[in-house]
Amino acid sequence: MIYQTDDTICAVSTPRGIGGIAVIRVSGPKAVAITGTLWRGTTLSNVKSHTAHYGEIIDPERPDTPLDQCVATVFKAPKSYTGEDTVEISVHGSAWIQRELIRLLIANGCRLAERGEFTRRALTHGRIDLTQAEGIADIIASTSRAAHRIAMSQMKGSISRRLSILRQQLVDISALLELELDFSEEDVEFADRTRLSRLATDIFDELSRLHSTFKTGNAIKQGIPVAIAGATNAGKSSLLNTLLQDDRAIVSDIHGTTRDTIEETLEIGDYLFRFIDTAGLRHTTDEIERIGIQRSHEAIGHASILLFVIDACQTFNPESLQLLNETGSDTGIIVINKTDVADAVEISRITQQIRAMSSFPIATISAKNGSGIEALKAMIIDAVSADFPAEEDTIITNLRQAEALGKAATSTQELLTALDAGIPTDLVAQHLRETLSHLSSITGTIPSTEILNTIFSRFCIGK
Amino acid sequence: MIYQTDDTICAVSTPRGIGGIAVIRVSGPKAVAITGTLWRGTTLSNVKSHTAHYGEIIDPERPDTPLDQCVATVFKAPKSYTGEDTVEISVHGSAWIQRELIRLLIANGCRLAERGEFTRRALTHGRIDLTQAEGIADIIASTSRAAHRIAMSQMKGSISRRLSILRQQLVDISALLELELDFSEEDVEFADRTRLSRLATDIFDELSRLHSTFKTGNAIKQGIPVAIAGATNAGKSSLLNTLLQDDRAIVSDIHGTTRDTIEETLEIGDYLFRFIDTAGLRHTTDEIERIGIQRSHEAIGHASILLFVIDACQTFNPESLQLLNETGSDTGIIVINKTDVADAVEISRITQQIRAMSSFPIATISAKNGSGIEALKAMIIDAVSADFPAEEDTIITNLRQAEALGKAATSTQELLTALDAGIPTDLVAQHLRETLSHLSSITGTIPSTEILNTIFSRFCIGK
Repeated sequence: MIYQTDDTICAVSTPRGIGGIAVIRVSGPKAVAITGTLWRGTTLSNVKSHTAHYGEIIDPERPDTPLDQCVATVFKAPKSYTGEDTVEISVHGSAWIQRELIRLLIANGCRLAERGEFTRRALTHGRIDLTQAEGIADIIASTSRAAHRIAMSQMKGSISRRLSILRQQLVDISALLELELDFSEEDVEFADRTRLSRLATDIFDELSRLHSTFKTGNAIKQGIPVAIAGATNAGKSSLLNTLLQDDRAIVSDIHGTTRDTIEETLEIGDYLFRFIDTAGLRHTTDEIERIGIQRSHEAIGHASILLFVIDACQTFNPESLQLLNETGSDTGIIVINKTDVADAVEISRITQQIRAMSSFPIATISAKNGSGIEALKAMIIDAVSADFPAEEDTIITNLRQAEALGKAATSTQELLTALDAGIPTDLVAQHLRETLSHLSSITGTIPSTEILNTIFSRFCIGK
Repeated sequence: MIYQTDDTICAVSTPRGIGGIAVIRVSGPKAVAITGTLWRGTTLSNVKSHTAHYGEIIDPERPDTPLDQCVATVFKAPKSYTGEDTVEISVHGSAWIQRELIRLLIANGCRLAERGEFTRRALTHGRIDLTQAEGIADIIASTSRAAHRIAMSQMKGSISRRLSILRQQLVDISALLELELDFSEEDVEFADRTRLSRLATDIFDELSRLHSTFKTGNAIKQGIPVAIAGATNAGKSSLLNTLLQDDRAIVSDIHGTTRDTIEETLEIGDYLFRFIDTAGLRHTTDEIERIGIQRSHEAIGHASILLFVIDACQTFNPESLQLLNETGSDTGIIVINKTDVADAVEISRITQQIRAMSSFPIATISAKNGSGIEALKAMIIDAVSADFPAEEDTIITNLRQAEALGKAATSTQELLTALDAGIPTDLVAQHLRETLSHLSSITGTIPSTEILNTIFSRFCIGK
């Protein structure tokens, strides 16, 4: 079951496809030796770490026709990404060359790396922990400054640091409890129950706080959902088009961005937003439309922000604002549209009516000529900033981590309840082990081994 | 008009998209300085050439949140790809990081590189010539071993070497002719007309030979066209499917491969083939089908190889072989299909009939159970190898080069005709300049400057 790193792995590390250059990464004990068998140039086994060398890749069976002229950069263990000897071969980005070089590497002793295996090796060799590995995956997938900032913070280990301090204190107490169990016949109490209870409360608070950031974190990572609602012909689709107009091209190069008829992603400021146009919300003529409307309602329910569009040319119906209260969205912005054609006095009257009924901010715009759009964008950013945590806060974006945090919080809660009830030491120890196990699953360390190590290293009772 | 290289350019050099790593290349006089303003780590201006450094990319306006942890490799002029100071920044392959780093580089003094501009700089700084630059483009686009081998030979300068020897001799004679013109009143003849005539003949032969390799070279580069013809129900589509069966996945990752209903690419041995299924060749019911059939006929006309499929279960019609002679394909292979169900005596009888009528090789196969398919593939490879030049031959694959060679050959022919007619020196010199200009356009040197340089450096007559 233990992951082996005694073989040498290789893979194309750059995006799939054809480009100016492609980088093939080779990592493992034989990385330099295997590359060396395909190499004509400076002897790679003699070079210093972190040096780049120009040379040719040669198929030993066809030595007259080099595969490519390229640059090999050597990173020696442990100062490499994986912590192992690594060679990065930078070749011309032809599909054929990439394929052929991988074939040659495999023919000469490499194994094709599995998905994420270089990072897994970094984890195995203690270069990073599990949340950092997950941070790296998030960094690669990040599509906005905010998503990138969270992933970067995670890659640098901020979650692990926060939890590891609390966890270490728990490990210490756990060690004392295990010791009590060893001397159970003697009825001693090494572990201070009050201190344990206080620590468990601190941990519970921290876990709950981290767990509660997931909704926000996930929205930042996936794109913050913004629903555009309002009566038919209020200008919802025009608003979406106007919003997308300038910036759509910016996100168009992102592979895998959801492109749905009713959903468009747009970067505003530091955030990625997913705008959901709920056109057709009022129609209920046939079954297929009914399903569509149900989906729109669900979309509004899941939205972080609701833009409620009002047509300034139509008689204002105060009851329509009711929808804002019905939805589950955290923040609403009332958008009075068609200021280019509506009567100014009427706009002012509608605004006053709304102010009397609702505390939501009001934007007056013309989706047609774009006036007020920048102010609306600023209001959207404000809504997000008010709702979302400060920069320095650690935020969870990963479902696995959120689930592990939730389980750890529940387990800590149970431990607290059990402590209050004054249960026996062996049951406390059992609860503690579970809580530690859940905490460990967040950062990926193996708790049982660690508890044992702590006991044996600190107590050395020669038993 | 002269290409400037005093600014610093940057671009993502790896394929578009998301991957483990992406490489951003920065080249020009300020490459190290500009990267340095965005860099936290070892001072890049102090490091040795060809060394890789771990560090962080920092937006100077947001120094608290690094853009990425990355590796920068410094190559100092002239020992870099472009011949300029170059930094290759290897970042995590997020679309956002790639975009943001390019933005930061531009904000700090870089210009976004144009298509092929790094190679253009290599050309400008004399690291490579034009045919080598074209070879690099072909290497990146190569999809088979044979196409790769030709491109590699070109990148290493084999065409340039061949032509430059002949061209230099012509430049020498041209210099003598120009000198004659300077002393035209004195009626001297510095340039040996017989030697010029002999040299022009050699050049014409070489140009014609190179030019004639284009059809082959282009087929290797684009995929060698193979038409599959025969009566309806002879098993043409089954044959195509059986051929593609094992190997189709291999080419499926090649971006830009033509995917047409009647055309499939397949790598066999060292070559890429384009198989054209001419199903429906016999039907002439309506207008649309007629156009289809016309296209099929054209496809057969352009094919290098024709596979003519015969159904061994049907009565053999010797007249059907006529099609083989009508087509313009260079090589035919007669494929007797359905050996799994046909009578062995009948197969033998058909084979004898064909042998009596045609010298084309005969393959007996079953497209259904795959028997004989490997032998057929070997016959296809043999057909190509017989038709195509030996490994060491220089082959033209580039339309621009082919056109330049054609024009140069025509120009050389005209020079020879003019020399035979004993035209005056100034007209010979004129012809010679044109021929040199055409020759130069192949490798991309500027002839007039060069001729002048030759004159002034060798003669130094102080005029």
